[in-house]
Amino acid sequence: MATVKKLINDPQTVVAESVEGFGLAHADLVAVHTDPLYVARAGGARAGKVGLVSGGGSGHEPLHAGFVGLGMLDAAVPGAMFTSPTPDQIAPALQAADAGAGVLAIVKNYTGDVLNFETAAELADAEGVTVRSVVVNDDVAVEDSLYTAGRRGVAGTVAVEKIAGAAAERGDDLDAVVAVAEKVIANVRSMGVALTACTVPHAGKPSFDLPEDEIEIGIGIHGEPGRHRIPLASADEITEMLLTAVADDLVLAPGEKVLLFVNGMGGTPASELYVVYRRARALLSERGVEVTRSLVGNYVTSLEMQGASVTVLRLDEELTALWDAPVHTAALRW
Amino acid sequence: MATVKKLINDPQTVVAESVEGFGLAHADLVAVHTDPLYVARAGGARAGKVGLVSGGGSGHEPLHAGFVGLGMLDAAVPGAMFTSPTPDQIAPALQAADAGAGVLAIVKNYTGDVLNFETAAELADAEGVTVRSVVVNDDVAVEDSLYTAGRRGVAGTVAVEKIAGAAAERGDDLDAVVAVAEKVIANVRSMGVALTACTVPHAGKPSFDLPEDEIEIGIGIHGEPGRHRIPLASADEITEMLLTAVADDLVLAPGEKVLLFVNGMGGTPASELYVVYRRARALLSERGVEVTRSLVGNYVTSLEMQGASVTVLRLDEELTALWDAPVHTAALRW
Repeated sequence: MATVKKLINDPQTVVAESVEGFGLAHADLVAVHTDPLYVARAGGARAGKVGLVSGGGSGHEPLHAGFVGLGMLDAAVPGAMFTSPTPDQIAPALQAADAGAGVLAIVKNYTGDVLNFETAAELADAEGVTVRSVVVNDDVAVEDSLYTAGRRGVAGTVAVEKIAGAAAERGDDLDAVVAVAEKVIANVRSMGVALTACTVPHAGKPSFDLPEDEIEIGIGIHGEPGRHRIPLASADEITEMLLTAVADDLVLAPGEKVLLFVNGMGGTPASELYVVYRRARALLSERGVEVTRSLVGNYVTSLEMQGASVTVLRLDEELTALWDAPVHTAALRW
Repeated sequence: MATVKKLINDPQTVVAESVEGFGLAHADLVAVHTDPLYVARAGGARAGKVGLVSGGGSGHEPLHAGFVGLGMLDAAVPGAMFTSPTPDQIAPALQAADAGAGVLAIVKNYTGDVLNFETAAELADAEGVTVRSVVVNDDVAVEDSLYTAGRRGVAGTVAVEKIAGAAAERGDDLDAVVAVAEKVIANVRSMGVALTACTVPHAGKPSFDLPEDEIEIGIGIHGEPGRHRIPLASADEITEMLLTAVADDLVLAPGEKVLLFVNGMGGTPASELYVVYRRARALLSERGVEVTRSLVGNYVTSLEMQGASVTVLRLDEELTALWDAPVHTAALRW
């Protein structure tokens, strides 16, 4: 008997059942390993290719398992809801992704994720796997946060995984893939807004309280506090707050080219994301910045939270070509 | 000043602004016509190809504009939120989609849509465009409904648009494309569940009341009444109600192959959709039915409604090949 209004059977089994369903639906792309739980590419690692692994708490789908496949990740490690995966889970995924050229771990900047990936890298190293890590910290909202020292890692992670994945796929060695990933991290910034909270199944109640006439600017993807709460505002006003913070932090100059990514937090209709996109694009245009690539949709979610984030990635020819390279995953495909 | 907690500026402009943003984000795929409002393929109709047009009330994104592109629709006509597009809007879209081989209109079974597409077809006919129509009525929940005589058209529409689109793309003539569309309609069934209602922007309040401990089985995509309200149940129990109704209506026999499509209503996390998929697939397996193709995600939504629908399409070799044919749209791509 369900006790929280969700399409689940049991808060204790929701992640395992969901990942099992994901594996069944996408058996052409992925293989699900259940003990410990991780998702790898169907067919395994391609000899000589640098392996890419990411992971983190569940509840942010399609991140990360939705990005396992050609041109992106080799393995993804889903933790419990909003909870870091354990080192014992991560280490086998790192080993599975190793095809002799080493592995890059892409870690979002949450203390638990960073620590557990470090420990897992040591475990994998003891088995002869060379592991390098990058930490994504694109959220400009706040320095230090509930689960983070420094800035949080949010939707920019998609760009890191896509572009580093393309670099690995074209045959770059581990140093080069790390360098590309660091280049993306240096040039990507995000900020989000929450209109509503979300409910983690085992908690059974919303992760924070947000009054009916207030929204939170700079929200974290686990509901961590943002910059401030403000009265309900128009989409154009909200978008300007987000885009201005992001573009200012990036120090975007007229004439630059960018990827504009409007990410849904899970419970926001697609129609609203395009309203945000429209305004963000106009604001960039006013700054003389050209949007040459776009992504709009639910890619890094917070369960059913209503809200969105705006991510901008400064592009050059190399990053554009790697963004455009073929990708064949459950959530991103071209 | 916003008066409803949504990422919008004004209920009167949300559709136009959203479609404008959609057009900017996907300028490689679509061209947005603003007066009257419709979305067509970038580059226009390909000479000699049967044109495909669909449309309906907005609020169900990515349906229909998200399916404009190679291998699927030639044009989509978005009405106001949950409101049929007008004949004056539809007729130019039919004309734009005509490349000399006639046009198929794919209409969901709502009285307003059916009437307005009929009138538009007459207007287009007067301009020399041959228009044929099919009416999608896959929702097994109820006969006759708030806006419908007969069964409602819901998520099965995606399969009709994809498969008829592939038939048109390979060069089938209008009679043949109509026949393929009718074959999909004859073999596709759906049923949905709502956990929460949704709020149409200009209404400013939820479209119906659903107590905190109840869900509605057989809900329509505009919140039309379903079969019954029941106390909150587990995902497995809910999925069994939906899948059983669908599979029984289809009279699925052991040994048959199907597409299993779990559609999110907009506000349900992807993780929950895969929990539903897992159970639906197991239930089909118990019936000896093989799932050979799958689709899981938000494709026919009801704004931010929490809930899901289960769609099953009986497949043969022809329908499978057409499903597999290349598609290049904002929301479906392979």
